[in-house]
Amino acid sequence: MNRKELFGHIKEKKSFLCVGLDTDPKKIPSHLLKEKDPVFEFNRQIIDATAAMTVAYKPNIAFYEALGPKGWESLQKTLDYIPKDIFTIADAKRGDIGNTSSLYAKAFFETMDFDSITVAPYMGIDSVKPFLEFEGKWVILLALTSNEGSMDFQLITSKEGKPLFQEVLEKSSQWGTPENLMYVVGATRGEKIAAVRKTVPEHFFLVPGIGAQGGSLEEVAKYGMNANCGLLVNSSRGIIYADNGTDFAQFAKKEASKLQQEMEILLEKYL
Amino acid sequence: MNRKELFGHIKEKKSFLCVGLDTDPKKIPSHLLKEKDPVFEFNRQIIDATAAMTVAYKPNIAFYEALGPKGWESLQKTLDYIPKDIFTIADAKRGDIGNTSSLYAKAFFETMDFDSITVAPYMGIDSVKPFLEFEGKWVILLALTSNEGSMDFQLITSKEGKPLFQEVLEKSSQWGTPENLMYVVGATRGEKIAAVRKTVPEHFFLVPGIGAQGGSLEEVAKYGMNANCGLLVNSSRGIIYADNGTDFAQFAKKEASKLQQEMEILLEKYL
Repeated sequence: MNRKELFGHIKEKKSFLCVGLDTDPKKIPSHLLKEKDPVFEFNRQIIDATAAMTVAYKPNIAFYEALGPKGWESLQKTLDYIPKDIFTIADAKRGDIGNTSSLYAKAFFETMDFDSITVAPYMGIDSVKPFLEFEGKWVILLALTSNEGSMDFQLITSKEGKPLFQEVLEKSSQWGTPENLMYVVGATRGEKIAAVRKTVPEHFFLVPGIGAQGGSLEEVAKYGMNANCGLLVNSSRGIIYADNGTDFAQFAKKEASKLQQEMEILLEKYL
Repeated sequence: MNRKELFGHIKEKKSFLCVGLDTDPKKIPSHLLKEKDPVFEFNRQIIDATAAMTVAYKPNIAFYEALGPKGWESLQKTLDYIPKDIFTIADAKRGDIGNTSSLYAKAFFETMDFDSITVAPYMGIDSVKPFLEFEGKWVILLALTSNEGSMDFQLITSKEGKPLFQEVLEKSSQWGTPENLMYVVGATRGEKIAAVRKTVPEHFFLVPGIGAQGGSLEEVAKYGMNANCGLLVNSSRGIIYADNGTDFAQFAKKEASKLQQEMEILLEKYL
């Protein structure tokens, strides 16, 4: 999916919502455990309930990997089930030397058919470029994350006075374009989002940290939105675990609708 | 396996060799392709031929992941086949927020039973700590890698005059101990290895970059060895793809023996 198509879906659905499929057999409603593939069955019902107001799905790969080979089968079935007009993100945070990154790219872009993958920048250019060589596919590079440990290294100031995440943005934006490179930008503080937006005005941001991690959607839109929206805002637990009964998918739909309605207002206000 | 046991195996085998199982169906001898599980069959023969002079095996997870669910089965069978007195490294370079890192830890330490996993530091403390909470298991944290892109961020100097890899070493060495934390230290230059050794005198280093990536074993030993050896030096392609015929395992054995003999001399010289 290219940037124009993605923006088209955002305008059409009046939403820039990404739903995180952090599907954990220990957290899904117990009635699903009698299904042959409970993880897929949960995802299927979540997708059915939320697809109308969702522009991206983001399976968190760790949750599937933790289940061994059958987890990868649930992941593949989930990916196949997601409607083709919804952007898919493998939240895998991979990053290795060139020939190894090529293999990860092959795993997520060919063996599976994800539109994008999250990538860690620590190993530099040859860990990122192999992912950018796939036509029509996207890298979503970690820049500024919203977790506790993000302060340990991402905010270290260089002798040129730039925090590390800024160095990552400046260097990596030379490797790809706004057509194949997005950034993970944590949603905890508006001023930080504004600083990132100034450095990379055109790129899309994947914004985690709404809800459970405490960010404000209004701040994200105010400081992060650009002329193509430029935002995919993720919610995982707040949607998929909204309820634990047989009606869980309806509760998920209700939470997703709430966010979509807020997003509709913000798109009118800031786009 | 604890540090004392690992050092015991090093002394006993007179070797600090780690063999990288970067097993690619496109590169293995063609006669193996008729086997039910060619990747496992290749690994099995490599392990049989090299176990006597090897103290660690390091499957590169990307190679298995690229094959989909059956790749994970080959990986599990390989792991089960490795003799219990040989240290196992999941070269996965994972790193994510706390609850996700916990799942990766579960995948590699419980679902599978690796002794250790390589982890990327960019997301900081909560991306590393969950791996350190498993008794008897190890984190091998990326510090200074040997690839082209390692210069992009790892060598950025902070306003305190420290390169990023140094900040990673100093901070992370507070999170774990030499009993559960090792570092990836690229082997391309002796002076850099000496600098790392000065910062973390006790920790083991996993050293890639011998052979294909051009590092010198003598330099690594001279500048990196400590009183517990403190080194695991990896060779992948130079051993496992030494030959492409039906006798490939014998050629692998020959290459591994060559390295073991060099290591024996270096252990006598520098330990």
